Amino acid sequence: MHPSVLRRVPILDWGRRYNRDRLTNDLIGALIVTIMLIPQSLAYALLAGLPAEAGLYASIVPILLYTVLGTSGALAVGPVAVVSLMTAAAVGEVAASGTAGYAAAALTLAALSGAILLAMGLLRLGFLASFLSHPVISGFISASGILIATSQFGQILGISAGGDTLPRMLAGLWAGLGGIHPVTLAIGLGAAAFLFWARKRLKPALMRAGAGPRLADIGAKAGPVAAVVVTTALAWGLGLEDRGVRLVGQVPQALPPFTLPPLPLDLVRQLALPALLISVIGFVESISVAQTLAARRRQRIDPDQELIALGAANLGAAFTGGFPVTGGFSRSVVNFEAGSETPAAGAFTAIGLALAAVALTPLIYFLPKATLAATIVVAVLSLVDLGALRRAWTYSLSDFLAVSVTIGATLILGVEAGVTAGVALSILLFLYKTSRPHIAEVGLVPGTQHFRNIRRYQVETHPTLVTLRVDESLYFANARYLEDYILARVVNDACVRDVVLLCSAINEIDLSALESLEAINHRLGEMGMHLHLSEVKGPVMDRLKRSDFLSQLSGRVFMSQMEAVAALTAPCPAGKAET
Amino acid sequence: MHPSVLRRVPILDWGRRYNRDRLTNDLIGALIVTIMLIPQSLAYALLAGLPAEAGLYASIVPILLYTVLGTSGALAVGPVAVVSLMTAAAVGEVAASGTAGYAAAALTLAALSGAILLAMGLLRLGFLASFLSHPVISGFISASGILIATSQFGQILGISAGGDTLPRMLAGLWAGLGGIHPVTLAIGLGAAAFLFWARKRLKPALMRAGAGPRLADIGAKAGPVAAVVVTTALAWGLGLEDRGVRLVGQVPQALPPFTLPPLPLDLVRQLALPALLISVIGFVESISVAQTLAARRRQRIDPDQELIALGAANLGAAFTGGFPVTGGFSRSVVNFEAGSETPAAGAFTAIGLALAAVALTPLIYFLPKATLAATIVVAVLSLVDLGALRRAWTYSLSDFLAVSVTIGATLILGVEAGVTAGVALSILLFLYKTSRPHIAEVGLVPGTQHFRNIRRYQVETHPTLVTLRVDESLYFANARYLEDYILARVVNDACVRDVVLLCSAINEIDLSALESLEAINHRLGEMGMHLHLSEVKGPVMDRLKRSDFLSQLSGRVFMSQMEAVAALTAPCPAGKAET
Repeated sequence: MHPSVLRRVPILDWGRRYNRDRLTNDLIGALIVTIMLIPQSLAYALLAGLPAEAGLYASIVPILLYTVLGTSGALAVGPVAVVSLMTAAAVGEVAASGTAGYAAAALTLAALSGAILLAMGLLRLGFLASFLSHPVISGFISASGILIATSQFGQILGISAGGDTLPRMLAGLWAGLGGIHPVTLAIGLGAAAFLFWARKRLKPALMRAGAGPRLADIGAKAGPVAAVVVTTALAWGLGLEDRGVRLVGQVPQALPPFTLPPLPLDLVRQLALPALLISVIGFVESISVAQTLAARRRQRIDPDQELIALGAANLGAAFTGGFPVTGGFSRSVVNFEAGSETPAAGAFTAIGLALAAVALTPLIYFLPKATLAATIVVAVLSLVDLGALRRAWTYSLSDFLAVSVTIGATLILGVEAGVTAGVALSILLFLYKTSRPHIAEVGLVPGTQHFRNIRRYQVETHPTLVTLRVDESLYFANARYLEDYILARVVNDACVRDVVLLCSAINEIDLSALESLEAINHRLGEMGMHLHLSEVKGPVMDRLKRSDFLSQLSGRVFMSQMEAVAALTAPCPAGKAET
Repeated sequence: MHPSVLRRVPILDWGRRYNRDRLTNDLIGALIVTIMLIPQSLAYALLAGLPAEAGLYASIVPILLYTVLGTSGALAVGPVAVVSLMTAAAVGEVAASGTAGYAAAALTLAALSGAILLAMGLLRLGFLASFLSHPVISGFISASGILIATSQFGQILGISAGGDTLPRMLAGLWAGLGGIHPVTLAIGLGAAAFLFWARKRLKPALMRAGAGPRLADIGAKAGPVAAVVVTTALAWGLGLEDRGVRLVGQVPQALPPFTLPPLPLDLVRQLALPALLISVIGFVESISVAQTLAARRRQRIDPDQELIALGAANLGAAFTGGFPVTGGFSRSVVNFEAGSETPAAGAFTAIGLALAAVALTPLIYFLPKATLAATIVVAVLSLVDLGALRRAWTYSLSDFLAVSVTIGATLILGVEAGVTAGVALSILLFLYKTSRPHIAEVGLVPGTQHFRNIRRYQVETHPTLVTLRVDESLYFANARYLEDYILARVVNDACVRDVVLLCSAINEIDLSALESLEAINHRLGEMGMHLHLSEVKGPVMDRLKRSDFLSQLSGRVFMSQMEAVAALTAPCPAGKAET
């Protein structure tokens, strides 16, 4: 088969090498992930403001499509916390939760997100994701975790509290405190306490009770399922619905429906920016975990193909009653550790969830929403990593600013403003830093051929010769700074006859910088000085040769700084003392 | 006096050293600039859509304020072509030309622009101007020249044609072609032809007629005044107003009035962005010419103080019936070449213009607008430099894209969209370039201590050792690219045991890049390889020591690449042939 077909439809490649060992591993991995995914899917659907079944639907067809098109053997695709929160924020702007318009707008958002991811993949624009710096991502994920946890406190307390920013959520909780529902609170707190305990202690407890490590592992992953089963049974047995405990309620007992995402122009316009942000954030989360897991098996994944696979998964969600999905971090790690080897594990997970949608949905009626809220709170609190603030503070001011502004803006202004502010700030800070590059005046370290900063080392210098090393590529934002710096250095030094620009750290000179060099050359000439270059890199020199700068240059271009010093050393002209 | 006072009020500094020689030079410079400025001021006021006298008012108090606060001895402040065009575009959005609201909005624009410049100066934000790259500035100025010239063709043809973009202007001219006014056209074309001739030929002609070079120079600068005088006399003598030639008409015979710029919130909001763009463009034009001229006399100008002086000048314009002003290129060069030495020349120019406002305004009644249009066309065509396109094309694709998109967007979408698109594109192109840095695999040039690209040189390499030199600082936008590049290089090469990152061209490593290095270190470790660094710069090493990366690093940090090679050379492990 043609390699480009194999590249675009990876299943044709790994499918040919599929065998019984891999099948066994994939089946076991799929079982564990399915157990984990059932309560998660329901919970994240509620987080997104949608009916619980949307979570199951968003996990079935999208996973199947990823199986065909994806390149990661471990990535588990479906609803994830941060994307669900972003979905709630975006769709909440255009429709009220619980209405048909809300569910329809979620389909539109998934369709737009799918189209954007697909387009980015086909146009090979995956590099755009790299403009999300690590501090921005980690700040955004931490702040999202706090927002998500806070948004669930209302369900645990049994009160109605909305809001899409931390101040509004807290105000809503504060206003509702009088209406706390004690039975709901007992279920929510009980479930949360059990889940916190189960995360760390359930596996050792099962092993002490005699279970083998593999079984204990599966049992520990089933912690949320246990919480769901127990609280559902309590709600049914004790008739908690009549006591005012909010339950998930009627869920259709069916496979995912075929749905058409509505695409009127004004809705598309309103959801375009949120869809772009969801796509990029989702892609970054997904690709990070996929690459990490692939490297452990010395495999490579193809980012552009991943964009295509995630795009198809989101389009699948849009046409089958879902909402935006991506590769989730924790479930992918679980999938990997459970031994899944190929995307086929995803297909088996999809089958498991389809069975759940058909067989288990009647039981879900009695599931308390507070249990799902507790599941979410316990899951997302592991996203909150405020240690990132401390690490950034220790490392550099600009990284600290990026992470703290992202956290602050996300909490106070919301998810979209947060990620936008973080990206804009980190780009501005980068531009600011490169616009004021480090420039060192250098001299020869005696007895060597090394030139070093005159402020850090004891070096030889010459009164008529100034050598400056610029530790940055020259481009428009620092061109004028360089002009100012050089002229300020020489304007009051009557001795100077030659200025050498040591170009060893200059990787590029753009047209603005070239014109600044021409201006520097011209102005130095008017002061009777010569401008020289030394140690210019090959590609930079190739570029300079295409302009007429080298013919205007009043001085010379030296291969090495040693040659420059040898050629330019002269005594200070008589009568012009060094100032 | 305290140095900070002298720095903030430079007149106190140069004023103490003022003497008779300087006075003479300044007076002669002022005379020439005044002669040049009278028709220019009137013309640029009309270009901005304002009554002619606004041009005189905008030249008097602003110049006086610049005299007190400015640092350039040659800069001539007043209305300039590009800023007048931007004023027309901005104010035209909020009021109709010719109304009282229009003139009032121009005052508001000048006030906002003054406040922005002042704030930038006090906050030392002058570096923001460096984000306007040379290709963007030159493209913007060229396109503005074309727009300005086209906008004047209607006056020369004697028809009404508006529009703020080239397509609309051309459509307006096309629609009005039937109404061409022959007498107006004769005056306009005659004036334009004379001015084109006078620019190059008047000075030699006067010298042939026996004038000394200095007198001939003054005479040549008076060319526009001659065109004004002759066409005004014709309009008066032949009663051209009755024949339908549009004249400047009634101009108040008075010193600048005191005006209060209206500042209602919604007007401020509408004009804030245009005011910012006008401030930055005006500052860039002004500082460029001021620095060029200062360097010729080995003087320095202070960019932050220039911002303050220009801010005060614009506030002055706002309170005395003017509109946004800045330091003009051609008039400053004239001022410099005429011998002006200090900002006092500006004060004398202001006095000259004040006399004109009081004494000459009755004569201006008969001045045909077509003459002023011709003055503008001849002046701005020298701004159009399409050679910049060719130079950028020869030099680099990204500079060519920046200049051509700026020209296209300015002509088709207007001045504000043009400059915004240019700035955004040049920043994106810069980020794109740095996000895919040049990475070279290097080896030792035999018999030397130099390491060079294995693709360009015959070098020694070792099967177990890969050395990569990254020619760019490491930051968030290229961190993932580096991860991908390194892992792609080694994943299929079973021989490799050691990967050395040669850091000689790395000027900074931000937190994102540090985390990528940690990931690279971790993943290489999982494949049984070690990551080493060599030739790390001092400031980068200082930063790394603040993190715990160095303690995690599986390999070592070598002072020089020679040491790295000496320590890491080993044969390929048996049975693992190089692939």
